[in-house]
Amino acid sequence: MKIGVLGSGQLGRMLALAGIPLGHTFAFYDAVLSPSTRGLGERCSGPFSDIAQLRAFAAPCDVITYEFENVPCQAAAALAALKPVYPPPRALEVSQDRVVEKEFFRSLGISTPAFRAASSAEDLLLALQELGTPCIVKTRRMGYDGKGQARVSSREEAARAWEELGSVPLIVEALVPFSRELSVIAVRSTDGQARTYPLACNIHRSGILHRSEIPAPRAPQKLIQEAHDIAAKILNELSYVGVLAVELFEAGGRLVANEMAPRVHNSGHATIDCSVTSQFENHIRAITGMPLGSVVSRAPAVMYNVIGTVPDTQQLAALPNVTVHLYGKEPRPGRKVGHITLLSPSAEDAGAVELLVRGAQ
Amino acid sequence: MKIGVLGSGQLGRMLALAGIPLGHTFAFYDAVLSPSTRGLGERCSGPFSDIAQLRAFAAPCDVITYEFENVPCQAAAALAALKPVYPPPRALEVSQDRVVEKEFFRSLGISTPAFRAASSAEDLLLALQELGTPCIVKTRRMGYDGKGQARVSSREEAARAWEELGSVPLIVEALVPFSRELSVIAVRSTDGQARTYPLACNIHRSGILHRSEIPAPRAPQKLIQEAHDIAAKILNELSYVGVLAVELFEAGGRLVANEMAPRVHNSGHATIDCSVTSQFENHIRAITGMPLGSVVSRAPAVMYNVIGTVPDTQQLAALPNVTVHLYGKEPRPGRKVGHITLLSPSAEDAGAVELLVRGAQ
Repeated sequence: MKIGVLGSGQLGRMLALAGIPLGHTFAFYDAVLSPSTRGLGERCSGPFSDIAQLRAFAAPCDVITYEFENVPCQAAAALAALKPVYPPPRALEVSQDRVVEKEFFRSLGISTPAFRAASSAEDLLLALQELGTPCIVKTRRMGYDGKGQARVSSREEAARAWEELGSVPLIVEALVPFSRELSVIAVRSTDGQARTYPLACNIHRSGILHRSEIPAPRAPQKLIQEAHDIAAKILNELSYVGVLAVELFEAGGRLVANEMAPRVHNSGHATIDCSVTSQFENHIRAITGMPLGSVVSRAPAVMYNVIGTVPDTQQLAALPNVTVHLYGKEPRPGRKVGHITLLSPSAEDAGAVELLVRGAQ
Repeated sequence: MKIGVLGSGQLGRMLALAGIPLGHTFAFYDAVLSPSTRGLGERCSGPFSDIAQLRAFAAPCDVITYEFENVPCQAAAALAALKPVYPPPRALEVSQDRVVEKEFFRSLGISTPAFRAASSAEDLLLALQELGTPCIVKTRRMGYDGKGQARVSSREEAARAWEELGSVPLIVEALVPFSRELSVIAVRSTDGQARTYPLACNIHRSGILHRSEIPAPRAPQKLIQEAHDIAAKILNELSYVGVLAVELFEAGGRLVANEMAPRVHNSGHATIDCSVTSQFENHIRAITGMPLGSVVSRAPAVMYNVIGTVPDTQQLAALPNVTVHLYGKEPRPGRKVGHITLLSPSAEDAGAVELLVRGAQ
């Protein structure tokens, strides 16, 4: 099949590297093309508002998918009139607005932090009073990697946050006293089969994912089951096809949903090396109507994001059980330029990778 | 780095799929370009005798490698004057002529079947007398997948074989009463480090590899050590860089070398799915001067070649622990169009894959 991907970054790159062995070809559409998918298929640049150009892009494709959740819903809807678009455009609608998303979670009985919508500085102050301080204030739309959010503890900070976040509609969230951040990655096929990868435990630095451990250590079966149930509810409600990620807080032995991503997810990159079938291959299997592959881990793994600068790959590659994945991008501060997977990590190897990865930043 | 590959088939495809995540780009040169590497790099078609065109191809490359062993030695030598060519061109010289190859093995103390060179029909008869019948008669050059060889038991068959093989220089080999065919795949880096994958056990049908099991079952440590020693002798003698495969007969608990391939090898395809670092990634690591990756198997695996027709990938993908690898080629009788890897094979799953793969042929 010919698979059209909206977006052209590293997720598109890894989707193509997983799909080419299955006999598929790829085409990428993006507002600004990333070098990550250079050489892996046709590439077309244009605004996502240009529906005619998007239609021309989709015409020779058998199926359309996307690798970032800020694809305009109008674009996805226009394409869905022509070709199958997976995951379904409704997943975009839900995930693009943090208030809609949390209301959606609650409608399914999934716990979320307490929250309020705020459309003005006055709303924001009112929400602070109701939820108590400190709160996390986020733009309803377009935030990622810790951008578009602020922690607010006073009326003064609230006024400043309203200005700094651009005087746009916000969500105000009560702070959840969580013990750690987890994510669950699941996949659902066109015939409604679903599988869920082992939970990942995620450590962020400066708002960007730094390290994911899969499976998450010391996760009791009850917690795993709760995560599976959360994923299953979302997949079924949306008649979802493809890979879905849900970011979760573990708080007092229970899970609280933070946000979902209707796509392959950074916390699942280790599945390339540790799983029988990676999240990328399973996404491709799902959207092309193939049976899903096994989500079983063959070995525990830790993934480290490579951010800003490429570390010494010679030293990294010399460590046993290390796999290096570079994205073909020019290094730039804060940019994800690759990731490192360490299989069956010993404390010593993990320390060595951590030093090399952090040393480069 | 930019890696120039002589040849453009499925081995080139899998080298590119392993090298792209390491940040490399690829270019392919072939007399007739195969669709297998379409979309994975620049592609240039021309005869291997056109040294000027080959030089132009190599000019922007950082290193040159090859994916088939019949690259003319003159072409490799001309390129080696410009750029590093790995594996070293001498490996091509040795492996292109079955007599030179067996003399080379013997010079290193590696057992081979008894053999004679035959440059005429008379030589052939004389060799038959000396070695006894039946014998295997092969062209000295250009044979592969059982082509260019015949089994000869009488003077009449000898005369017919001489005609049918094209009246070209031959090698006559005594039949080895082997219990099974094994192969050893090893890799050596630019600084002389070497690693050896677990032995593979290979089953052929109609002269073409049908199935490889890795690790080879019931292989005593002494046999494994003997295979490692054979690989090490060849690697060191040739100051080899890259992946080398040696096909072996197991006969009476000892190993007899049949032939070597100075490249990634069909019997190592399962390493994509079962090894920490695949033969393809380790070849790329070696020729680009990186430290080698781990050759440890994370699970036993069986690889099945897909020959002629693509089987029902839906049914195959529905089996647990199956990975499908297609090469993007048009199906044609006798053509290798893909392979299937089955991890941690149960007898039941292996039977199901075998049926599906053979049913398609």
